[in-house]
Amino acid sequence: MPAYGAIEAGGTKFICGVGTGPEDLQTIEIPTTTPEETVTAAVAWMRGHAPDVIGIGSFGPADINPESPAWGYITSTPKSGWRNFNFAGAVHQALGVPVRFNSDVNAAVLGESKWGAARGVSNCLYLTIGTGIGGGAILSGRLLHGLSHPEMGHIRIPHDSFPGVCPFHGNCLEGLASGPAMEARWGKPAQELPADHPAWALEAQYLAAAIVNFTCTFSPELVLLGGGVMHQSALFPLIRSEVELLLAGYIAIPDIKPPGLGRRAGVLGALALSMG
Amino acid sequence: MPAYGAIEAGGTKFICGVGTGPEDLQTIEIPTTTPEETVTAAVAWMRGHAPDVIGIGSFGPADINPESPAWGYITSTPKSGWRNFNFAGAVHQALGVPVRFNSDVNAAVLGESKWGAARGVSNCLYLTIGTGIGGGAILSGRLLHGLSHPEMGHIRIPHDSFPGVCPFHGNCLEGLASGPAMEARWGKPAQELPADHPAWALEAQYLAAAIVNFTCTFSPELVLLGGGVMHQSALFPLIRSEVELLLAGYIAIPDIKPPGLGRRAGVLGALALSMG
Repeated sequence: MPAYGAIEAGGTKFICGVGTGPEDLQTIEIPTTTPEETVTAAVAWMRGHAPDVIGIGSFGPADINPESPAWGYITSTPKSGWRNFNFAGAVHQALGVPVRFNSDVNAAVLGESKWGAARGVSNCLYLTIGTGIGGGAILSGRLLHGLSHPEMGHIRIPHDSFPGVCPFHGNCLEGLASGPAMEARWGKPAQELPADHPAWALEAQYLAAAIVNFTCTFSPELVLLGGGVMHQSALFPLIRSEVELLLAGYIAIPDIKPPGLGRRAGVLGALALSMG
Repeated sequence: MPAYGAIEAGGTKFICGVGTGPEDLQTIEIPTTTPEETVTAAVAWMRGHAPDVIGIGSFGPADINPESPAWGYITSTPKSGWRNFNFAGAVHQALGVPVRFNSDVNAAVLGESKWGAARGVSNCLYLTIGTGIGGGAILSGRLLHGLSHPEMGHIRIPHDSFPGVCPFHGNCLEGLASGPAMEARWGKPAQELPADHPAWALEAQYLAAAIVNFTCTFSPELVLLGGGVMHQSALFPLIRSEVELLLAGYIAIPDIKPPGLGRRAGVLGALALSMG
């Protein structure tokens, strides 16, 4: 059996892994700083495990079109240093093995479909709410995909007067409901806000509006919510009742729950990607 | 060659047609009142043309899942009399020919893809803005589809204090930007509002927010805007500049234009559906 390598490239940290699945996976975490530092460290660790193929689930926007000359690049990210970085090319050049490249959330939904909470589910949405907000979906067994991968974090939803923190759009979903947005609004990191803080009811409203929009758009049966902000498990019942309220019986309410692979959803997704 | 029949079932009128394409199509219009009256009239006209198969593009929500016991039904529509109506069954029973059943906008995007503005385009969204708002999309040549067909008219977008007119959701997109919403807000039908009326700038904002949301969600290259409200062609440049402003260079802006099949997009879509 070939050795599989996985890189979950997040805005805060990389998780690199080698193995064959949830029962057989070694991982390492590397902070996300510059491409030089972070990718060099990831490649050095990978080299010690000699994978035959590597899957990368990357933060974005990224060019995942195999016919594009910029395939494998991170494109218009606000993260300084990473814009127009040839990520897949750098990893391929350093290790000399095939690289499979997709968005972090497309990888995560693939992993959940293969090993996690979406096994046997035809239509599943995976959302991550952390440093940024992103979404990937599988519909009838295929990744939702148009001209480019989804950028679900940047939809517009009803909101109050808070200006938001997205450097491109201000108060888009990510600008209102990501971890940094919560910190900017409430003056402390989300993980320090107690479960009964009003921050969570508002956060649930924003995430419910987003889930309603995605449900009206492509009708998932299952919505998996991962990422650092979702570690506050009190959010789940708040979001479920808000989605029910907003849909008002018009269409079926999707099941809403945490990823089955927990904090390893991203790296196992990248592993699923490497396995093709 | 078999004779093809088409029914575009809209909230205000039915357009029935028989033929083989844009150059060969006879049509008739029937006002949408009750299922008994309207479907009886449609079936009577069809009988005179003896089609071998009929495509129905229906307003919704409708059950288009071929494995469902309620396949061919209109389900939770606010339109009185039509809820839980076995539409495909009634037509099949009356005419004794196979019936292909889908949403009006799924049919329209199929027709545009076959004969209209979306020929050769892999990723296209069709939105209709009229009595209601609905959307259908083709991605990589296949209809966008999850557990059910899209209900894009019911997404939530930023809005002002107008309560909206959707009987289910108040100020969802349809509640804010459909023809009846414009009439409720401005006190006269949309077609009576002059091109320089402030109604159109606000309408463009709402439709642009929706297009941005769909673009962030599934990345169409082309967005076709049909329906009665879009007969105000001054809307197109207003919408285009608002979409550009909202996306702020983050991702590619889709081309935004009218359907190539004009007011026949719906009935030709139903015809495309009947041709399989």
